[in-house]
Amino acid sequence: MARKLDKRSAQPLYAQLKELILERIASQEYAPGQQVPSELALCEELGLSRPTVRQAVAELVSEGILVIHKGRGTFVAAESERIELRGFHPFSFSLLAARSADALRDLRVEQIADDEWFGRLLAQQNPAMTANQTGSAGGCWVVGWQLEHAEQVFAACRSLVPVQLFPELGYDLRKGKRMMDITANKYALLPSKASCKVFVRQATLDEARVLDIPRSAPVLTAQSVMTSRSGAVCEMSTAVLRADLVTLSFDAGRG
Amino acid sequence: MARKLDKRSAQPLYAQLKELILERIASQEYAPGQQVPSELALCEELGLSRPTVRQAVAELVSEGILVIHKGRGTFVAAESERIELRGFHPFSFSLLAARSADALRDLRVEQIADDEWFGRLLAQQNPAMTANQTGSAGGCWVVGWQLEHAEQVFAACRSLVPVQLFPELGYDLRKGKRMMDITANKYALLPSKASCKVFVRQATLDEARVLDIPRSAPVLTAQSVMTSRSGAVCEMSTAVLRADLVTLSFDAGRG
Repeated sequence: MARKLDKRSAQPLYAQLKELILERIASQEYAPGQQVPSELALCEELGLSRPTVRQAVAELVSEGILVIHKGRGTFVAAESERIELRGFHPFSFSLLAARSADALRDLRVEQIADDEWFGRLLAQQNPAMTANQTGSAGGCWVVGWQLEHAEQVFAACRSLVPVQLFPELGYDLRKGKRMMDITANKYALLPSKASCKVFVRQATLDEARVLDIPRSAPVLTAQSVMTSRSGAVCEMSTAVLRADLVTLSFDAGRG
Repeated sequence: MARKLDKRSAQPLYAQLKELILERIASQEYAPGQQVPSELALCEELGLSRPTVRQAVAELVSEGILVIHKGRGTFVAAESERIELRGFHPFSFSLLAARSADALRDLRVEQIADDEWFGRLLAQQNPAMTANQTGSAGGCWVVGWQLEHAEQVFAACRSLVPVQLFPELGYDLRKGKRMMDITANKYALLPSKASCKVFVRQATLDEARVLDIPRSAPVLTAQSVMTSRSGAVCEMSTAVLRADLVTLSFDAGRG
């Protein structure tokens, strides 16, 4: 971008240049792993002296943002390759909508007997829904699992399902029954509509441990409340994703 | 959640309790602003001694996670209220699909004459598309604007539009012409399909300044590549959102 640096600014020119290079990296004009223009080329493009360019580049190298390959030039540091979850949609992390639970790594199941907990959670996540829609008598199943790619865990998922709707779910999962079989003939109870929220928050200790990230590192969170054809809330799913690794991608058309 | 603490663990009980409370806050069992159970209630629920509970609570108070209101009890600290962007979709931050540019605060327009820049960016953002689809001869318009809520800027948006498709766009926007009028009779050139990516990265200096966040704080980024009915890439939009403030929400149905 042919943005000029401001020679009369209180901010030193090398600092302005650093910022310009960071912007170009952010905009992918200089992409990860790609060579950046030589010092001389930057001098000419921006009308800067060699020491100014050298200082900016040196600081970015010391910050790990640029990398010098001797004899070849200066490059943008390659970032860890992102895992692109294509076709992301509000049912992406649903347990009930999963074709099989075989793929769900480290599946854990517990039962919360508290009848009100599910309703309270629901009211907080989706105030438009009332707790008596939930069919929460009997408490709910809490099912946790992980997603991994190349032996790296990138998602900690958790799903809540009312026991009233799926009284056998926990026992079936513990026995290793497949989701296909668990949900057979349960058509009217399966997720039909979903309301999804995507946001960033800090990882909890547990999440940090599972995802192998520092405590309080940011996690990308996708939370869905799902209702069945019968109108009951049948599942609340939460996926906590490594913010440094995961990209959600999806397509859409417009009338 | 009736999870038991492990008295034989190497981790002290108060630390386990801290973690349990943090989990309950993360799962919204204890919601922001809500009262948490009294020390006595936690002792009874989990079979812990009073000093253990007191130490866990005291540390969480000193970390700003819990707040004591004298005479009333202990509460989860109220988090800054999130801005929920409802009905989020891949065209949400499109300039060409916007009904009006009146709402776009602090609109800035520049023209990048470099014919190849748009194509290179496109190839990086969406390798499936080839640069010769782009109609980038003549360079592209770079339009930047901000979104705000309650006088707080929560999004820095930028859109790239090929000059070849919209030769007058920059001049029209500078003159204050409305998007409705700019896009009238341009039906075949307007966004019809979009491919969207949502991910988290660190803010650049510029973004940190505009969004009033610390440098390198996480930002939630939504990036869309849009094609028109005529098949050309007509726009690339990027919205950089304050990760601490914004929630994207949307609904979906399932056949």
